Amino acid sequence: MGEPAGIGPEITAAAWQRRAEKKLPPFFVVGDPSLYEIPVSEIEDPAQAIDLFKQALPVFPLKLKGKNKPGVLNPENAPCVIESIEKAVSFVQEGKASGIVTNPIHKNILHEAGFEFPGHTEFLAHLCGNHHQPVMMLMAKNLRVVPLTIHVPLAGVPGVISKQSIIEKAKIILSSLQTDFGLKAPRLAVAGLNPHAGESGQFGREEIEIISPAIETLKKDGHKVSGPYSADTMFHDEARAEYDAVLCMYHDQALIPVKTLDFHGGVNITLGLPIIRTSPDHGTALEIAGKGVARPDSLMTALLKAAEIVGYRAY
Amino acid sequence: MGEPAGIGPEITAAAWQRRAEKKLPPFFVVGDPSLYEIPVSEIEDPAQAIDLFKQALPVFPLKLKGKNKPGVLNPENAPCVIESIEKAVSFVQEGKASGIVTNPIHKNILHEAGFEFPGHTEFLAHLCGNHHQPVMMLMAKNLRVVPLTIHVPLAGVPGVISKQSIIEKAKIILSSLQTDFGLKAPRLAVAGLNPHAGESGQFGREEIEIISPAIETLKKDGHKVSGPYSADTMFHDEARAEYDAVLCMYHDQALIPVKTLDFHGGVNITLGLPIIRTSPDHGTALEIAGKGVARPDSLMTALLKAAEIVGYRAY
Repeated sequence: MGEPAGIGPEITAAAWQRRAEKKLPPFFVVGDPSLYEIPVSEIEDPAQAIDLFKQALPVFPLKLKGKNKPGVLNPENAPCVIESIEKAVSFVQEGKASGIVTNPIHKNILHEAGFEFPGHTEFLAHLCGNHHQPVMMLMAKNLRVVPLTIHVPLAGVPGVISKQSIIEKAKIILSSLQTDFGLKAPRLAVAGLNPHAGESGQFGREEIEIISPAIETLKKDGHKVSGPYSADTMFHDEARAEYDAVLCMYHDQALIPVKTLDFHGGVNITLGLPIIRTSPDHGTALEIAGKGVARPDSLMTALLKAAEIVGYRAY
Repeated sequence: MGEPAGIGPEITAAAWQRRAEKKLPPFFVVGDPSLYEIPVSEIEDPAQAIDLFKQALPVFPLKLKGKNKPGVLNPENAPCVIESIEKAVSFVQEGKASGIVTNPIHKNILHEAGFEFPGHTEFLAHLCGNHHQPVMMLMAKNLRVVPLTIHVPLAGVPGVISKQSIIEKAKIILSSLQTDFGLKAPRLAVAGLNPHAGESGQFGREEIEIISPAIETLKKDGHKVSGPYSADTMFHDEARAEYDAVLCMYHDQALIPVKTLDFHGGVNITLGLPIIRTSPDHGTALEIAGKGVARPDSLMTALLKAAEIVGYRAY
């Protein structure tokens, strides 16, 4: 369901309406059926969804406690947002659903309601048993990127980059490229931190002291890892043909190319969890909610990617 | 001329060969005529170039002191590289040429020969009288970006961003958009430094303490300046329609979108100098020099852009 006052309900309805055009996999919503202004079919069990999906949006019903108005957050509805995530995870854990696609949530309103996790992903990791290290991958067209650090102020980025964290994330990415994307010998490119990847130490030494040693260790373990590359020359068409994913050092280094190349169709995939989870790469977009202008592109790509991963993990 | 052992000579020859196809403005080289494996015409005065240009590449001849081999730097030739720049600037200052397009130089070899400037641009500013503040703008297709800081290690970027430097660069950009690009009421967008432009101070406070106050001052002065924006959502097609140029906070924030969108055709334009100067946005590319694979796209765009600015400055 995601935040009911955001664009989640309308993009979900729009995705269902365009299900045939995009050959979307059958999906069902865990949320309040009153949110969707299209034909809905309430279900008691996910197994019912596959047949019903052709005629109506299947919804496993939850009940919002408060009133819902697009664009206006209502703290009374926060528990239902959390319940939707919990229920979706339990369906996957019970084998009743293949994966989860999460609509955006609004963190502040959940925190006010007592939600203790920094975001969606950490909550999902908790529900999966807490010994997992979730890794956020973003995809746009033929580009896959993972930011090593995410919501860290730029000034703090150099201080939190470590050889260990690069090696750990790289291994999760490489493993996921095999299991989730069907690549037998995945190639990971690693971005530098500084302009021109430091230009031999002239513009910063993190490449020499941290990033290159991490790459060397990964290579010794038999992985196809290369870099550190100057980040500005990594993302054009020809460069993208040389790798299967990029490990970036910080948020904008990863997100600028993804959103420049494919603003509406980018998608977020959580690696490193036992459950399959994708999500649109946008937020709740409260300012346009209910106006009928929100585009379902990213949600539809998230649905397609989740189904693709289901297929790869089956073998 | 640029570095004779780099790709400069071959992309110059290739640009001349494709002069009709791309409607390039008449240009002449200040350099050693032996470098160009196409018909050349030595000239004594730039005025001769316009007529000769149709039949041969006009070259104002300088003489390399040492042997030149593509891909191999020869310190003996460094003085000729410097002389080429000096001569080109003096032609413009004397009104004998309209502008300069500089092929890439190799800084280290020039420094070994006693060149005291960090790069091309600072040398040009010196030759123009030193009281100018040159500003590097990069263009790709319909995107113009200016990095506030350039070859600064990422860890040093937050420390050198100031309200004053943002205001100064913004004014040079806005003025140039009028005089050099013919825009009557140019719109400048300013990027944030942190993820999501700090998200109201949650991921860094530079937006609140430095960038927004600079924007407010510029607005009060009547300029169309907006931001700070989350850098990842500034560069897709629809976003680019909302501004005429972007002031970015650091190298990769500016260069990633430019090179992702237009790797081969990006071009570098120096604002804030009395002379018109453009250059390709790539380096000497020693590793491919002489192999016939270097692409002249960026140099050709640099030639076209220089001519365009000549046209705008004439009115």
